[in-house]
Amino acid sequence: METHETSSERPVERQLHVTNEGCLSELTKGRCPVNFPVAVVLPAAGSGERTGLSTPKQFCKIIGRPLISYTIHAFERVFWIDNVVVVVAKESHDLMTDIIHKYNHTKVKIVEGGSTRHRSIFNGLLAFSEQGVGSKLQKPKVVIIHDAVRPFIEEDFLLKITLAANKQGASGAVRPLVSTVVAATAGGYLDHSLERARYKASEMPQGFIYDIIYKAYQHCSEAEFEFGTECLELARQHCGTSAVLIEGPSSLWKVTYQRDLTSAEAVIKESVSQSACIITGECAETQNLSTWMKNGLMAEGMWVDAVPNIEQGMSRSTNRNFIKLSVNSPKSVEIGEFMKMCEETKDGLYPFVILWDSSERERRMNKLCQMTVALIRDRNAAFSGQILYA
Amino acid sequence: METHETSSERPVERQLHVTNEGCLSELTKGRCPVNFPVAVVLPAAGSGERTGLSTPKQFCKIIGRPLISYTIHAFERVFWIDNVVVVVAKESHDLMTDIIHKYNHTKVKIVEGGSTRHRSIFNGLLAFSEQGVGSKLQKPKVVIIHDAVRPFIEEDFLLKITLAANKQGASGAVRPLVSTVVAATAGGYLDHSLERARYKASEMPQGFIYDIIYKAYQHCSEAEFEFGTECLELARQHCGTSAVLIEGPSSLWKVTYQRDLTSAEAVIKESVSQSACIITGECAETQNLSTWMKNGLMAEGMWVDAVPNIEQGMSRSTNRNFIKLSVNSPKSVEIGEFMKMCEETKDGLYPFVILWDSSERERRMNKLCQMTVALIRDRNAAFSGQILYA
Repeated sequence: METHETSSERPVERQLHVTNEGCLSELTKGRCPVNFPVAVVLPAAGSGERTGLSTPKQFCKIIGRPLISYTIHAFERVFWIDNVVVVVAKESHDLMTDIIHKYNHTKVKIVEGGSTRHRSIFNGLLAFSEQGVGSKLQKPKVVIIHDAVRPFIEEDFLLKITLAANKQGASGAVRPLVSTVVAATAGGYLDHSLERARYKASEMPQGFIYDIIYKAYQHCSEAEFEFGTECLELARQHCGTSAVLIEGPSSLWKVTYQRDLTSAEAVIKESVSQSACIITGECAETQNLSTWMKNGLMAEGMWVDAVPNIEQGMSRSTNRNFIKLSVNSPKSVEIGEFMKMCEETKDGLYPFVILWDSSERERRMNKLCQMTVALIRDRNAAFSGQILYA
Repeated sequence: METHETSSERPVERQLHVTNEGCLSELTKGRCPVNFPVAVVLPAAGSGERTGLSTPKQFCKIIGRPLISYTIHAFERVFWIDNVVVVVAKESHDLMTDIIHKYNHTKVKIVEGGSTRHRSIFNGLLAFSEQGVGSKLQKPKVVIIHDAVRPFIEEDFLLKITLAANKQGASGAVRPLVSTVVAATAGGYLDHSLERARYKASEMPQGFIYDIIYKAYQHCSEAEFEFGTECLELARQHCGTSAVLIEGPSSLWKVTYQRDLTSAEAVIKESVSQSACIITGECAETQNLSTWMKNGLMAEGMWVDAVPNIEQGMSRSTNRNFIKLSVNSPKSVEIGEFMKMCEETKDGLYPFVILWDSSERERRMNKLCQMTVALIRDRNAAFSGQILYA
């Protein structure tokens, strides 16, 4: 097994859409390589002071949904992951419970955090042990430790981390250093700088044989619990297990500063704007128009489906960007009904009406497509319900 | 002089607006501490492969303007900086010349880059030396080296770097490490992890006594020219100058990946959306309405001015977000004239018309303000010229 991959450096937006390539394609051939129990511990008890916001960053909302819910979803969609233990501060327990209910998370167990990152992770691990408080979860063979604030984790990379951990005892994601690392003297002067090529930034996720990381934490000193941050180092010091370092994609980045929330929002908006569904009705003219529109939107990079009614659209995919076409000026009752249906879907878009002037067909169709794409991508509530012109 | 500042960790958006606090306030007291020549070298010859884009990231456009132009502007607005030497690849020379003309950059000299970062920086330094090709610039006492892809550099921090370099010979910006740094074995396993507190990420800008960094480059080995990246290290190795490390704000971050372009755009959009100017005309009713609107927009966090005509608005500030109020339904010729004036300003907004229904005055005024703020912040060309309703 290769331990060092060449970084693909694809734009992060693209990386969102290569899910399920690893294990699922293996599964169809009847040989998914993960034939042992796997669980996740997600420390989320931090205060997120570096964003400069009052809300810890894992609970900041991105197009209406807390960041941590995206991260949990990324694990829940992987069928070979059994449990996700989310470790939160006591004061966030109710908020976390609400998030689990609202977004139908089914694999999550909440555990109370400790005063430091290491204490929180250990609390998470205890949920699988006889020592843990409350109902015990099945002990996994491999446990993945990740950050709640790294939502863009893909199944193919989780598979690599999991298999490497199972084989070597421990594994961790690394990335090339973006900046040179320097050592400072006590007085604040340059002591020396590190040779960039020899060093890597240690990222998340990391994978461990459960018994190894559990033992490492049992032997952890108070000083390590207090000041340490690196799980791989604990496995090395206390169990003699040297982790395999695997280069991960750039999308593994950690939401740290407020600007990172903007980036995360852009990635998520891009991912939910990939597809749209045109509701044509039964009229031949709108069905004809929908073919034009479909081609126009596909030229803008969207994947587009056209169906006669919204019920069919809803049942056919998880896409929630609906475009209702009508050749008549819409009656207000009709718009009202459509808006109500939109609002009932959890990730519903803000509704708009675009009136189309059929003169200068080609130019206006281009304008119509541009506006539709912009409305879907921007998701700006301020213009909700406006009547626009193409 | 303090060498280690506590990081303020204010959100980056806020940091954009604290310009000119350092030297200018000193100047008003008649004692600007920079009484020696200062120049900047801006290496911009990289290909920017990490963004996954075909355009090098320093030339990527952010709301229509190349990233490097924002960075140059950040230096040009500092009156005690004399020259900015921009080092670009041969194939980007014409593009760079166009940018200088289009955005009226006045302190810039273009120099051709070398095959590596260090060679490019040295080429930049040679522009001040007898050895350089073409017209020689005045040799500075202190030279600041920065990255073209770090546009959010503030005068107060440049002042710190410059004064420290003048005193100690060299100075450099550092930031706390976001990730633990690990050393890998040749086989790709964890060798050891570094104690995070002892190390810092070396960022830009860095400042040097010109003669020191020039001498350091003269003694640079071929291997250093080829594989090195760290200017501070050269000054230490070849001149025995240990740089002062100064903790910089988080806004110093380097645009590296595509997601960073999104963040940079958000910061710049925020900064150009801070203020707006309402054009009231002479009619008492619109002037009255403008007072309402001004209060509404200020409640949304904007700084708002109201003037009778656009000429006054243009002469009074550098703000280019104009709102023309009218109580009559606009005539198309009137809208046309206004749109033309908007287009003539370089950073002009896309024009929109919002028709206001005066019933339910308070609710609609809130909606009007929300829409106006959203139009200014989003700057989306797709809806340009639309007639909206509040």
